[in-house]
Amino acid sequence: MKLALIQMNVCDNTEKNIKHAHDLAIQASQNKVDLIVLPEIFTCAYQSSNFPNKAFDTNSKYYKSIQHIAIDTGKFLVAGSVPEKANHNIYNTSFVFNPKGEQIARHRKVHLFDIDVEGGQKFKESDTLTAGNDYTIFETPFAKIGLIICYDIRFPEFSRILVDKGADLIIVPAAFNMTTGPAHWELSFRARALDNQVFYAGCAPARNTNATYVSYANSIVTNPWGEVIAKASTDEEILYADIDLSFIQQVRNQLPLLKHRRKDIY
Amino acid sequence: MKLALIQMNVCDNTEKNIKHAHDLAIQASQNKVDLIVLPEIFTCAYQSSNFPNKAFDTNSKYYKSIQHIAIDTGKFLVAGSVPEKANHNIYNTSFVFNPKGEQIARHRKVHLFDIDVEGGQKFKESDTLTAGNDYTIFETPFAKIGLIICYDIRFPEFSRILVDKGADLIIVPAAFNMTTGPAHWELSFRARALDNQVFYAGCAPARNTNATYVSYANSIVTNPWGEVIAKASTDEEILYADIDLSFIQQVRNQLPLLKHRRKDIY
Repeated sequence: MKLALIQMNVCDNTEKNIKHAHDLAIQASQNKVDLIVLPEIFTCAYQSSNFPNKAFDTNSKYYKSIQHIAIDTGKFLVAGSVPEKANHNIYNTSFVFNPKGEQIARHRKVHLFDIDVEGGQKFKESDTLTAGNDYTIFETPFAKIGLIICYDIRFPEFSRILVDKGADLIIVPAAFNMTTGPAHWELSFRARALDNQVFYAGCAPARNTNATYVSYANSIVTNPWGEVIAKASTDEEILYADIDLSFIQQVRNQLPLLKHRRKDIY
Repeated sequence: MKLALIQMNVCDNTEKNIKHAHDLAIQASQNKVDLIVLPEIFTCAYQSSNFPNKAFDTNSKYYKSIQHIAIDTGKFLVAGSVPEKANHNIYNTSFVFNPKGEQIARHRKVHLFDIDVEGGQKFKESDTLTAGNDYTIFETPFAKIGLIICYDIRFPEFSRILVDKGADLIIVPAAFNMTTGPAHWELSFRARALDNQVFYAGCAPARNTNATYVSYANSIVTNPWGEVIAKASTDEEILYADIDLSFIQQVRNQLPLLKHRRKDIY
């Protein structure tokens, strides 16, 4: 299967961002891709104050325009994430559509990102966001896919359960920053893929050094041997990756990590 | 606290190996270290056939000579690992001694290493070894220390429980090979340390390209931010590392991964 990760520039205008995502997705769809992925919070700048102000619900025109990215490209679409208004809360939510524009999955970020690194990045999602509570996995004709958002990747327990539920590929709309990105981005994607013997794909916004929160970018795809098989730079770019799912079984036969777990003692 | 990891040459003579470990440990002890670590299977070449032939029990003269490394250096000693004969089985066992030579902990490798990489490394510990079933953690005046052996590091669940039991540092006598070493050694030590926000120290035998199983060597110490803070080369070497345990709390305050776990859903 072939992925396109849209590492796009994000501004602070919801409509313009969705239009821009649409344009880039159309471009990607001309390259025989099976699945298009957008970055975390691609509809506005990633700022706590934006989440309530720029949130929308599934009845909004914005939601419909995102559906149309799937319809107009004729591709499966993991629509990065958006601030979603629902149940009087705001969630960091990733909607997934099939090529007919039907929503087939929805992941609300489960682990909220509250960090305060001395001399580095500070951010507190829990100021304005509510955490989801669900594991998200969906079927496509190409693969069974797990879906998590950014900080969710930090927790080995969470990925492990998706893999036990049969995920072959875990997609991660994400926006690491200039503190955690250089330190942990590639390391996390390589290690999770290795430990779980699946593919991971992380799609980030392009880097904008004028933003209050600067995305590390470097969208990435890693394989079950823990290798990087595709990596973007920092500017806007569509990153393509061919995923050979048979490699999962090949690695698991040779280095049977999942089978060797001692579930009797943990 | 200060560690000395003895990345020693290992030959096929048990007595000579213990004598050699003793000499190097004496040398290390002159550098104000608190704890000395030996590599996985430091008493014979790492080969399945050797495990039954070279195994010994805690009444043997070999065990007593190892105790004397602790006594003669006056240091805490993680005595790498040895093929241990017990209960009519053979285990891959790490004994830990205090400076009086009293055994204060014992870890029997829990995950046996059975791999078969196409065009790469093959090995089947379960041909001759029996797996242990216990978590091993011990107290020193300097730190609470978790102890695992080599392939045990592959399993995030296993380390996680040691950290939940209070380990600040996880020591790993280990012998990755020329297939898994370049691919996964540093990645595994960095990722486990990062995910669990503790220190890891891996002590390997020096590389001997004439052996049937060639150790990757590269003994390593990683910190709670996922960084390598000390690394050996491939030849015989004593690797020293200063461990600042206060860094654990500093990292956990800034990036509270352990606190942010969603134990309510996994």
